Formats: sequence, C-alpha cells, structure tokens
Amino acid sequence: MSAKIRWGVLGGGGDSLIGILHRVAASMYDKYQLTGAVFNPDFEVSKAFAEEIGIGTDRIYADFDTMVEEELKLPPSERIQVFSVLTPNFLHYPMAKKLLASGFHVICEKPMTMTYEEALDLQKTHRESGTIFALTHTYTGYPMVRQMKKMIEEGVLGQIQKVDAQYYQGWINPIIHDAELRNTTWRLDPEKSGISCCMGDIGVHAYQMIEYVTGMEVSTMLADLNHLYEDNEMDIDGTVLLRFGKHIKGVLRASQIATAEENNFTVAVYGKKAGLKWEQENPNYLYLLEEGQPLRTLKPGHGYNSELSLDGTKLPPGHPEGIFDAMGNIYKGVAKAIRSEAYDPAEFPSMTDGVRGMHFIETAVASHAEGNVWKNL
Amino acid sequence: MSAKIRWGVLGGGGDSLIGILHRVAASMYDKYQLTGAVFNPDFEVSKAFAEEIGIGTDRIYADFDTMVEEELKLPPSERIQVFSVLTPNFLHYPMAKKLLASGFHVICEKPMTMTYEEALDLQKTHRESGTIFALTHTYTGYPMVRQMKKMIEEGVLGQIQKVDAQYYQGWINPIIHDAELRNTTWRLDPEKSGISCCMGDIGVHAYQMIEYVTGMEVSTMLADLNHLYEDNEMDIDGTVLLRFGKHIKGVLRASQIATAEENNFTVAVYGKKAGLKWEQENPNYLYLLEEGQPLRTLKPGHGYNSELSLDGTKLPPGHPEGIFDAMGNIYKGVAKAIRSEAYDPAEFPSMTDGVRGMHFIETAVASHAEGNVWKNL
Amino acid sequence: MSAKIRWGVLGGGGDSLIGILHRVAASMYDKYQLTGAVFNPDFEVSKAFAEEIGIGTDRIYADFDTMVEEELKLPPSERIQVFSVLTPNFLHYPMAKKLLASGFHVICEKPMTMTYEEALDLQKTHRESGTIFALTHTYTGYPMVRQMKKMIEEGVLGQIQKVDAQYYQGWINPIIHDAELRNTTWRLDPEKSGISCCMGDIGVHAYQMIEYVTGMEVSTMLADLNHLYEDNEMDIDGTVLLRFGKHIKGVLRASQIATAEENNFTVAVYGKKAGLKWEQENPNYLYLLEEGQPLRTLKPGHGYNSELSLDGTKLPPGHPEGIFDAMGNIYKGVAKAIRSEAYDPAEFPSMTDGVRGMHFIETAVASHAEGNVWKNL
Amino acid sequence: MSAKIRWGVLGGGGDSLIGILHRVAASMYDKYQLTGAVFNPDFEVSKAFAEEIGIGTDRIYADFDTMVEEELKLPPSERIQVFSVLTPNFLHYPMAKKLLASGFHVICEKPMTMTYEEALDLQKTHRESGTIFALTHTYTGYPMVRQMKKMIEEGVLGQIQKVDAQYYQGWINPIIHDAELRNTTWRLDPEKSGISCCMGDIGVHAYQMIEYVTGMEVSTMLADLNHLYEDNEMDIDGTVLLRFGKHIKGVLRASQIATAEENNFTVAVYGKKAGLKWEQENPNYLYLLEEGQPLRTLKPGHGYNSELSLDGTKLPPGHPEGIFDAMGNIYKGVAKAIRSEAYDPAEFPSMTDGVRGMHFIETAVASHAEGNVWKNL
Repeated sequence: MSAKIRWGVLGGGGDSLIGILHRVAASMYDKYQLTGAVFNPDFEVSKAFAEEIGIGTDRIYADFDTMVEEELKLPPSERIQVFSVLTPNFLHYPMAKKLLASGFHVICEKPMTMTYEEALDLQKTHRESGTIFALTHTYTGYPMVRQMKKMIEEGVLGQIQKVDAQYYQGWINPIIHDAELRNTTWRLDPEKSGISCCMGDIGVHAYQMIEYVTGMEVSTMLADLNHLYEDNEMDIDGTVLLRFGKHIKGVLRASQIATAEENNFTVAVYGKKAGLKWEQENPNYLYLLEEGQPLRTLKPGHGYNSELSLDGTKLPPGHPEGIFDAMGNIYKGVAKAIRSEAYDPAEFPSMTDGVRGMHFIETAVASHAEGNVWKNL
Repeated sequence: MSAKIRWGVLGGGGDSLIGILHRVAASMYDKYQLTGAVFNPDFEVSKAFAEEIGIGTDRIYADFDTMVEEELKLPPSERIQVFSVLTPNFLHYPMAKKLLASGFHVICEKPMTMTYEEALDLQKTHRESGTIFALTHTYTGYPMVRQMKKMIEEGVLGQIQKVDAQYYQGWINPIIHDAELRNTTWRLDPEKSGISCCMGDIGVHAYQMIEYVTGMEVSTMLADLNHLYEDNEMDIDGTVLLRFGKHIKGVLRASQIATAEENNFTVAVYGKKAGLKWEQENPNYLYLLEEGQPLRTLKPGHGYNSELSLDGTKLPPGHPEGIFDAMGNIYKGVAKAIRSEAYDPAEFPSMTDGVRGMHFIETAVASHAEGNVWKNL
Repeated sequence: MSAKIRWGVLGGGGDSLIGILHRVAASMYDKYQLTGAVFNPDFEVSKAFAEEIGIGTDRIYADFDTMVEEELKLPPSERIQVFSVLTPNFLHYPMAKKLLASGFHVICEKPMTMTYEEALDLQKTHRESGTIFALTHTYTGYPMVRQMKKMIEEGVLGQIQKVDAQYYQGWINPIIHDAELRNTTWRLDPEKSGISCCMGDIGVHAYQMIEYVTGMEVSTMLADLNHLYEDNEMDIDGTVLLRFGKHIKGVLRASQIATAEENNFTVAVYGKKAGLKWEQENPNYLYLLEEGQPLRTLKPGHGYNSELSLDGTKLPPGHPEGIFDAMGNIYKGVAKAIRSEAYDPAEFPSMTDGVRGMHFIETAVASHAEGNVWKNL
Repeated sequence: MSAKIRWGVLGGGGDSLIGILHRVAASMYDKYQLTGAVFNPDFEVSKAFAEEIGIGTDRIYADFDTMVEEELKLPPSERIQVFSVLTPNFLHYPMAKKLLASGFHVICEKPMTMTYEEALDLQKTHRESGTIFALTHTYTGYPMVRQMKKMIEEGVLGQIQKVDAQYYQGWINPIIHDAELRNTTWRLDPEKSGISCCMGDIGVHAYQMIEYVTGMEVSTMLADLNHLYEDNEMDIDGTVLLRFGKHIKGVLRASQIATAEENNFTVAVYGKKAGLKWEQENPNYLYLLEEGQPLRTLKPGHGYNSELSLDGTKLPPGHPEGIFDAMGNIYKGVAKAIRSEAYDPAEFPSMTDGVRGMHFIETAVASHAEGNVWKNL
C-alpha cells in the first residue's frame, strides 16, 4: 500500500510539545501526510504556523466546525482520513464525538473526556460509527512494555499474584505550596480539569498500564487521596488498593508532590513462577525475576523478544529509543487499522481504555470521598 | 575505658546465621568479650560449639535459668553485663523479661514479643530496671540510613509531605503454593509465629524505618492484607495506608510473594523542599532530589555526612560496607550506652521501637480483619 | 523563515535503518521537505519506495549523475538545497565531492572517505565551495553530550588531566570465528571497507567524541590493534594511547569482539577540579564528580543545562530521548547553517572532524603496523 | 578441629583502618584468637591499645625482634602460629622473611616487598620454610569475584579474547597539584614507596585480579605512565597494554588523578562464547553477557553459584556483604591451610601473586622509562 494517510491536526501549534510529539510520531514510519489543521483558535496564527512548518495553508481552516464541514464536501479519496485531537482537555469530548459521528478516524490525547458519563456517550457514538479510535496512552508504545505484555500473555509469570505500579512526579510542588497559585492554576480548578488532578492526569496512566500488561481487569478498589491544603479541592497525591479477584491484589501509587521526581513511572507484576518490572525513565530495560535464577535484563531489538516488541524497534540493540519512538509505534498501529491491515489490538489503546480510565478516576474520587471504602469498577 | 564488655549469648549456635551476624558485629569495634552462653537447649551441643569457636566451656550453662542464677552469684565485676537473645521468637519475651528484671542489659532479636500486650509488659519491666535494651532493627545501622535521618532532622527536606516504603521478598512462594507445606510450616502457624507473617516479619521493619528516618509517628492506618489461599490464616502480603497528621500521608507495602525479590527494602521521604531515597540492596547510596537541581548521590565516609553517619563508617569512600557493618554499628551504640558514654539515641533501636512495632502488627491485622478500616496507632 | 529546506537523499531506501534514521531526524523540527532522491541503484525500486513513503516520483532520478545534472537545471528557488549521502562507504567521497563542487550542501554519513588523502582532497573542494558540510557523528547530538562539552568549555573541570573513552561492541564475534565468513564479509575486506574495521567504524567515533567534548586535539598516539586470526587483515579490536600535551594523556579502547556488548560507548574526562562521565546506552544522564561532593547526575531539560543542551531537548525532564532525537539535533543545526541563522559550531560535526577522523584511522593502523610506536596526529 | 588459631599482629594499632579490617576479618569465622602483638613502635602505646581492645598485655612485646625471640621460646602448642604484617611498606619484606624463616605462617599486607629482587628472595625463603604465606589482595575474597573465576575455569566464556581492567581513584589530586605537598608526601617519595606510586599501589591489584579471574598469565606488556609534573618522579596514572598470547590482548588502566573517583575498580573478560563483568563498588553483582541472550546479573548466596563463591557468602541473597566479608574470606582460607584442611588455592593470594606483582610494577616502570616498549613478564 503506497499512498500516505491523509492526516488532520486539531491544536498542537507553535511550540506545543504535544504538537511536536505527534508530528514526529506521524513521520516515523512514513505513513502519514499532514493534510489539514486548525492549529490555533486564531486563524492567522494557525496559517502562519502552517507556513512555518512548510505544509501550505490551503487546508488550514478558520475553526473546527468549518474544517469538518469543508472536509466532508471533498470526495473520500481526498478527504482527511484521521484527526489527532490535541486541544485543551474539555474540547476532547465534543470534537471526538463530532469527528467519529462524521466518519473520521480519531487519535485522541488523554484525558478522553471530562467525565465517565461523557466517556460512555462517546463510546456509544464510536460503536455506531465503524471508525478507528485511539487514545494516546503513549507508554504502551515502548517495545519493552509490549514485551512485558506478551510475556505475561504467554504465561511466563504463571498465575499473577501481585501487581504494583507507581507514578511519582514532583512538578506541582511550587504551585501547591503557594496559596495564590493553588487557587488560580487551571489544573487545580475542577471546572477546567475535571474532578481529579493526580488520578486524572497520571494515576489513570498507571491504571491503564496495569490492565494493559496484565490483561486483567481491576474489579474493586479503595482510594486514599491527598489534597494537602484545606483550600484545595483537587487530589495531588494518592494510593489506590486494587483487587482483580478474591486473592489477586495490587496497589497503585501516584503523586505530584513526590518532590523532584521527574516522571518516575514503574510497573511490576509478580506471578507464581516469575516477576517482571519496567521503569519509564529507563524504558529500554525489562527485568525478569525468577526464583533461583540470575536476574535477567531484556533489551529491545533482540530475537528473544516478541513480534509485537520487535515491530516497535527501529534500530539494532544498544541504540536507545525514547518517547518519540513510543508514540511513533502507536501511530504505526493506528495506520495499520486505518488501512485494514492485520494488527494486534495491543498496538494502540482504544475507546475501552478511555472509558475504563474515566471510570477509574471517578471511582477513585468517590472511594476517597466516602471514607476510603471499596468500590466496584 | 579499656576492658571489654562481658557478653552473653542465648541461642545462635552452630551454623545459625543470626549467631554469626551477632558475633561478628560484637567484634567489629573491639568492645565485647563473649563470656558465656547457652547456644543450644542440648548442653553437650552447646559446649561443643563453644569449643569450636574457641571460647572455653567454663561459662557455658545447661539452660537459661541456670545461667541467670549462676551469673547472679558472681561479683558485678565478673558478671556478664549484656545478653543477646537469639532464641526462637516465642522465647524473646520471657527471656528478655527475666534478664531485665535481674539487672542485665539486653540486645534482643526481632520480634521483641509475640503480642502487643507482652510488649507493654516488657516495657514496664524495662522501665523499672534501669537497664539498656536494644532491639536489632539492623537496617538502622547503615551509615546512609543514619545520614537520611540526620538530614531530615536538620530540615533538608522541609515539611514532610509524603512517605513511601517498600519491603518486597519472594521467599515464601515455594511454600505458599504447596498445600501441604503451607499447612505445616511454622512461619504460617499463628501458634508459633504470632498473628502475622508478612507484617510481623518485614512490614514492621518498614514501619520502624519510616518512624526512624522521619522522626514522625504514624497516627492512623488502614491495612489490606493478602492470604492468597483460603486455608492459610496468615498474611503473606499487604499494603498499609498511613497518616501522620491530617495532610501528611504515607504508604507501606510489604510482600513475601513478590516472586524472586530478594530483600528489596526501600524508603523514600518527600518534603516541601527536597526528597531522600534509600535502598537496602545498595545500602551505600543515598539519593537527594531537589527541584531544579541535579540528582545527588551521597556515599559513606565523606565529610559532607553527619557525625552519626561517619561514626558508623570504618573505611574510606569506595569500599562497600554490608550488613555486618550495620549490625556492628548497633552493637557499638549499645556499648556506649552500657559504658555510660555519650551517644545519640539514633544509634540503636529501643524498647519503644519494640512496643510500637508490636502495636503496628496487631493494628495491621485488625484493620484488615475489620474490613480495611482506619485504626489509630 | 517559513518554507522548508528542499532536501535530497542518496541511498537509504527500503528497510535501510540509516534511511529511517535520517528521515525521522529531518522531520523532527519541521525544517526539511524530502524533495528528491536516488534511493536505490535500480530506478524502479527507487520509484516504488518513493511511492511507498508517499512523496511522489517526479524528482526520483535514475542515478546520481542525472540527479545532479537535472537539479542544476532548476532555478535556485526550486533546486534541492542539501543532500544526505547514505550510500555505501566507498561512494561517500566521490558523491560528496561532486555535490560540494556543484554548490549543494551535504550531510554525509560516516566514514567521510576511504582514505586520509581523499579526506584532504574533499576538504579542499569544500573550502572552495562555500557550502555547508556536516558529518553525522550522531552521538554529538545528545543533549547531555552537548552539556558535557559546554561544562568543560566553561571550566567546570579545570585543567584536564585524564581522558578515557571506550567503544565496545561484540557483533563481529559470529563472523570472526568462522573462517569462511571472515574471509568473505565485506567489512573485513580492505578493498571495500578501507584499511581498518574497528578503528574505522567505531574507534573514530570515540576519537571524535573525545575532541568534541574536551575541545582539545590529540597530538600523538600509539596504537595496539588485534586481528585475532592470522588470515584476517583487519583490526577488530584495539587500544590507543593518546597524548594531548606533555602531561595530558588519554586512552581510547574500541572492540568488536567484546562479546555481547551492544553499543557500550562511554567517555570520561577528569580535570583538576572535577570529572564528567557519559554513557551512550543511558544517554540522558551526565555524571559530575567533584572531590568531597556527592555525585551529581544531570539530566536533560533542566534549567541548569546550557543553552546548547536545552536547544536539543524537546520534552520536559523525565521523558527519555533516544538516538532519533540525537540525529534530529544535528539536522536542526545544519538547517540553521543553511538558513544562515546563528548557530554554535558544536551543533554538527564538520569537514574538520572528517579529516581528523581519517587521519586518526590511518595513524592507528600505522602505529600498530610499525610496532606500536608513537605517531603524531 | 576446635581450638582457635593463635594469631599475632604487627602494626595496625590505634585507629589504623587496616588494623580494624584484619581484626574483624579474623573474627568472622571464629577461627583466630588474637594472642600477641606489636601494635606500635612505642611499647607503651602498644600496651595501651591492647588494653583498649581488651586482649591483655602479657604477649604484647617491645619490638618485633623480641616478639619473635620470645615466641620461639614457647612450646609449639602455645606459640603464635600466624602473624599478620600490617607495618609500613618497607618493613613487609624483612619482617616476613624473618617470620617465614622462623617457621611462622604469614599474612602480609600489600605490597609484599619494595623490589622484585626482594620478592624473589622472599619466595626462596618461603619455599624452604614449609609455611603458609598469604598476600591480602582483598578483592579476590568477594563471592562474585570467586564466581567469575570459577565460571571462566568451567569454560562459560570459551576461549578468552579480550581482557579489560580499570582501577580509578582521585585521592592524590589535592597532593599532586600542590608543589610543596607533592615533594614531601611519603607516597611520592621513591625511598619510602618504592619505584611506583599508581602501579605499585593499585595497578598491581588490577594486574593480580586479571590473572586471578582468567587463570592466564600476562606474557608481555607495554606501559605509558603519567607523572603530571616535571618535579614528580612517581607515576600517578598509567595505561598498560597486555598480551597473554599472540592474539589475546588486554588493557589495564589505573589512575590516582581520576578526579573524585573513589575506588572504581572494574574487570571485564570477554570470550568466544560470553563475557563477564564485575565492579568493586557494587561487589554483589556479576554480569554475564551472552550473544542473543538477556543480560544476566548473578548475586551471592544463590544455588547457581560455585562452591567457592557460596563458601564465601554468610547470609541469604539480598543482604549486601562488603569489604570486611571479602577479607574475612581470605582469613578463612588461610585458616584452612594452617589447619591442613582441604582448600582451593583460589581462597587466598599466595607468594606467587606477590612475586608476579613486584615484577609487574618494575616492568611497568621500565617499559615506560624506555619509551613505551614491550617487555616480557
């Protein structure tokens, strides 16, 4: 299959990191052509940015609705096929809904929606649309995360008996300890950020990762969150106890006040036969622990890895790949789906991940608010 | 002060690891002379072992009671001054109680007692006795743990806002998954091991470490334990949510089913200004995290360390010290106390640690049994 | 400046890793437009690949000479501005020479030429041409390598007194130990690979890195190479003693028989005041050693880094960047040069690096062949 | 065998680190009884120290000669059996010689002698004496170094093809850069330190380690040393090229000006089939590299280790052992030899190590002085 996929972008203009991340990822396997965009609410800014990145301004539109309207007028062979939604969080849901309903494929930034209710509604639209929907839980694009999933699937660990995930950051420290800042920052404003800060932003990544690598679903959970200050409504730290079955337990810890931690996201799964551990800050290593055996460190690009892992590795062993590569792998999977090529559902997070994620966030807040009680998921 | 302290040992004969550990520790700073012992319930075995380690059999006694009786007949200048209690767990309490009541100093292996009630009773005896009592929470003897404590004391972290401890092992795996073994092993028999396996054996180490390094006391806790099998009464895994004050929270995770983990004990404390992390398996490194600063790794023996840390380092930087050194430092502190020399209470864990530890264990079990509810500590 | 730079590619078609690496790098900062190419000696294959990656076949040419001829017919405003030379090694020199002489800018894969003599000749052509020439010593594109260079430049280390570089791989093992393979592999054939295998392929990377980060030039060297088998003409391992001045020494070790090493490339520089160390396999860490100070680990994206380092970091701290990002940074620097924007010469390796590199390789072989004697550089 | 070995100590009094190290090591396996000593040239100081460490002053002697004389008067069943020589370097040779000639066993600190000639002479005395002689190259006592040796012996690596050792420290920096200090420090005075500083102190450790783990002997070598200042006679840095056979090469790097390195001693051996790496600062890990296999990290105390390694591990996996344990293992081996128990020669370094070591040092200096030429060993 030769022609590139026609790709549209909403948001992500200027120096936006998320914009750069998606553009590079889209270029990684030569499968996408940036065809149209609304980079910015200001039409002139949007057009200037298009010129800056050298894509021409023909299909830069004044706003989202115009874009959808105009693209739908084009014949399917010219029409943009897939949109990446990189706009502020509260716009994810309405934009994704309209795009899916109009027959466009969607790659959506996290969080998928502001509420669980919206998530369920979006899921309904998606089911009716017959389109591809991907949610960019980027970390699942790492070759060694994929390897972890496949090894667990193949039974390397045996029956899972313990799951442990941590997502520690410290970035909110300067904000949370300043009374004025903590009352004015949009991330701590429920109107703009939804009902949770820490669980909504990073806890949900850990939650999705746990379900991704184990292939198991959390059945019930109990959350203890921390707001640190009386005048702060939003959680900025929390621990969630997890149960997968009667005797399979886990624990998820997330924090934005783990001072000076950068992006310390780890996941460990222990089974009857062996354990596996992965750390985001050194993503090219996967640790296999087996009773009575030397610790084994698996790395990308080796023949001992699964096809799914190797498919996401572009270079020979010893050449570190980073976050761009992880996102690139997700775009690659989406391209396969759009082109109706064979692919493994593990190649990109789906609508189900989005729905479960929103449910997790709301349940975490509810479990805490009701006095740290167990809630079903 | 020149003469060595006259030291007696209860248990720890033959190939007993704990016996070797205490004997080496006692020799490390040339402060103890092994003077008498009941190494084994079998008098002949006990005497043979004394000969094997070359200490003569004059003051090897037939049993504990005889030992106490005979030693009390000796003038104070010849009498054994301090006993190390290395016997099976259920004997710690009666032996320590009789020794303290008889005016001997005691170095006691963990767990101090079988129940919180016994712990309170022992504390009462100790208070009346005017003796020195040390509980061998060995890990507090590491130079970098001591450094961590002192840096927190000096305010390097600012107000603490998050505490995280992990103690993961996998050794019980082969036992827990074998129906016969799990119903016959003494460690899983409440009669012999007390009411908790995982929390009692390693969770309490993590708990004591948290209070040691932070200098704060846990006020309330909520525990979720795992027994894995219906026919197993004892916890072999668990997570405990901790509160130190209204807005200072922590989490303690301990497991004996974290497959192939050896002794993966870590503690992290995050404050308003900085964070500190330590890992038992690489005990010579202490990590200091400060917003906007390079990660700093402190090591033993450098002038930037506190006096307490330097006092526990025998060699120049770059020469790794291990668990024997940690125990040696505890013995060194006890020797200072016995000789009425100035010392820092941080040099050895005390009766209070023992009492709080037993309270922690019973509270963990109760919180879990009552449905994962918060309990005061 | 808005329009993208018109970019041509020679070689690198199909699954070529080097092709992917350069295309992704060129896309990273939205500054290049792939405008024309000869991906493959077979014109049909070349065109098919162009379609596969969706760039159209208008400016896919039958061969290199035609490409140059046709492009020169176009007005400068449409003409390809810069070519990446990704062809087999022996073609680098003739292609680069013709391109430079014709006024095109060149990004050339390593090795620049087959001999030092060719390198000097290419340098002459380049000097007369007024064009930009970059040699892709990719590792100098890593943010923390750039930080290392800048810290040394700023005097953080004081007077340098010791330099140590290692580049260990094990990939040639299966070839070198098989008599048939080692006599038929092109890499071990001087006709096809030039006079050196190990020094020519990886030793020269270490050499260039040393001069890049220290800003010093090696003055004399003594090499000891290893061929392992009598019937093998080419070095596959070697150590080179280096002198920068009378009392400043260094050592460079490179090997392709360091069994199972992947790409273990490290550089350490020690000065009167401090030391700095970097490892390619964990490229996001830079270690600063100072007497009496905790070890400091610097990471990308922090404000304490130099402008040059920060300019090469696209994401916030904690998001690992890999080899694509390193190459992307080199392309970014070249773009600045082409557009006559201000840039730091440290942003991409130049003709001088290529010339010195070829001199290093030939000198290494000569020093060894003459009996491990010192040779000027 | 029950009674402890009667042990004498020469030097090592007061706060001497080497004294503490040897005393603790001697106590580790309950096999030595400190019976007599000359801790200090000042008799009163010597006696006071004996009292301080609680061993009585009966067999504290006024000086070395008196000690030998008096001990020889005692019946063999009471006489000291083995002496540890911990005196200043220039006394090692005369003391060891007299002790061996008098029929005492000797544990000697490094360097064994001041010159190669003395070493050969000492070897002659030793051969005639029928005594046990051990040289404390402490690092060979680490369980994972022993494991490395045994794995190589068993052929895990196949034919060795590359050896690499590094011993980097930075401690001499403050001395070497101060004109007065560098001209007055005893370590830089050939009269007091012998002909080499860096090679003599640490290079020889790396050399002995290489021969210990590989079981191969270096046949020829070429050294390049650094004195840094014209007015300094002694090497404080150097690289040595090694050949074991025609096609087996190695490189040994040692430095005392690798700023702020503490005791960064590493050894790597690569064979046709696999590679092994060990680092002194993290001595409990041994890395096994095999083509196409995950990196394996071996740790002490596991059943997969050799008997020799397990014999040197006192605790279960996960409890870090340090330098005291390493020295303890050497003392344990010597005890076996004294008691005529079966032991592996790998348990302690011998006279041969001492002789080869002195030859290495003199050859390194000669190779450098003669213009970096190859010399046989």
